[in-house]
Amino acid sequence: MSGVDEDAGYAKGRARRALIVRTAFEAFSAHGYRGASLVQIAADCGVSRAGLVHYFPTKESLLEAVLEERDRVDSEQFFAGVTSPIDGLDLLSRFARLVEHNTSNRGIVSLFAVLSVEASDPSHPAHAYFATRYENLRRHLRAAIADLDARGLLRPGVVVEGLEAELIATADGLQVQWLIAPDSIDMAAGFRRRLAELVAVEVA
Amino acid sequence: MSGVDEDAGYAKGRARRALIVRTAFEAFSAHGYRGASLVQIAADCGVSRAGLVHYFPTKESLLEAVLEERDRVDSEQFFAGVTSPIDGLDLLSRFARLVEHNTSNRGIVSLFAVLSVEASDPSHPAHAYFATRYENLRRHLRAAIADLDARGLLRPGVVVEGLEAELIATADGLQVQWLIAPDSIDMAAGFRRRLAELVAVEVA
Repeated sequence: MSGVDEDAGYAKGRARRALIVRTAFEAFSAHGYRGASLVQIAADCGVSRAGLVHYFPTKESLLEAVLEERDRVDSEQFFAGVTSPIDGLDLLSRFARLVEHNTSNRGIVSLFAVLSVEASDPSHPAHAYFATRYENLRRHLRAAIADLDARGLLRPGVVVEGLEAELIATADGLQVQWLIAPDSIDMAAGFRRRLAELVAVEVA
Repeated sequence: MSGVDEDAGYAKGRARRALIVRTAFEAFSAHGYRGASLVQIAADCGVSRAGLVHYFPTKESLLEAVLEERDRVDSEQFFAGVTSPIDGLDLLSRFARLVEHNTSNRGIVSLFAVLSVEASDPSHPAHAYFATRYENLRRHLRAAIADLDARGLLRPGVVVEGLEAELIATADGLQVQWLIAPDSIDMAAGFRRRLAELVAVEVA
């Protein structure tokens, strides 16, 4: 019987941990990491401050859990089965679908927009996370663009130098305008228009 | 004599007001509007909280003053003498020079990046400011692109639909990557590369 009780306790603990991560996600996305209050997050979950500290001893550890969870979901939904060497057409198509998916996920867009800017300060606990995230994104896109170039799939006159940073910038910047004026800005269409200018075949 | 005293008092008041605006600019740019503390801003200026309230009765009024000051400086330095109807080549060239100028003004870039994302929340006091700012930017760029199009200065195959939002996004998004990794990202060169792809003549 003790095994069953332990399992039930374990499941309850996992559910509570997941609830705290979801609530923190919403708080960070609305107020930024520095603006969010641990006391408020605990209250919104219906746990005490001590209860929260049991799962996440520091605010930093909670931020880490939120970012890990987002990466896990994105990886499963959009980047599962990415092969190496990278297929450029496949990667751009995954990127375009992620931007489309984000149009119905304002919270995620806001979280990354707020945190990435806040974390540009080198003393911010997510600074290394975002520096690495952008480096990896640029590296993968550079490989995708080189693959398209090698296969003759880029339109004539496309300059590949710096294009990986520019494509990420286009998606990030359209997200900011979309967050401010969701009815005026179609970020998914805007991003696809840019891809269509670059790539000679259709990006699915 | 009383006139002289009043002038001296007035000059001192103006200098103190300007100091508060500069200090608030730095605090908002480092911590965002919501994260910045009025008590800390007052302390950094060497005035009491009551002294600060004498100049700026609310945190909102201080934010307004900071944004007005930034607009004034940008307008004087980069948009003085813009004629109507808009000369597209002239406007893009001013935009490119502003991005270049920003590479030595991390504080300004950070201020606008932090506030624009924070202000995407409709309840934020700068929401209307940023909504209007982006609308105006898009309108001016649309006019600039239409002018270039009419003069036959756009490269063949350039799609003008949504291009105004995309150009702003490129500049905004490159700024985020540059804030995080200033040594890896040349945002001025990246922006100029994009302009060179669009415009058939050199953008000064």
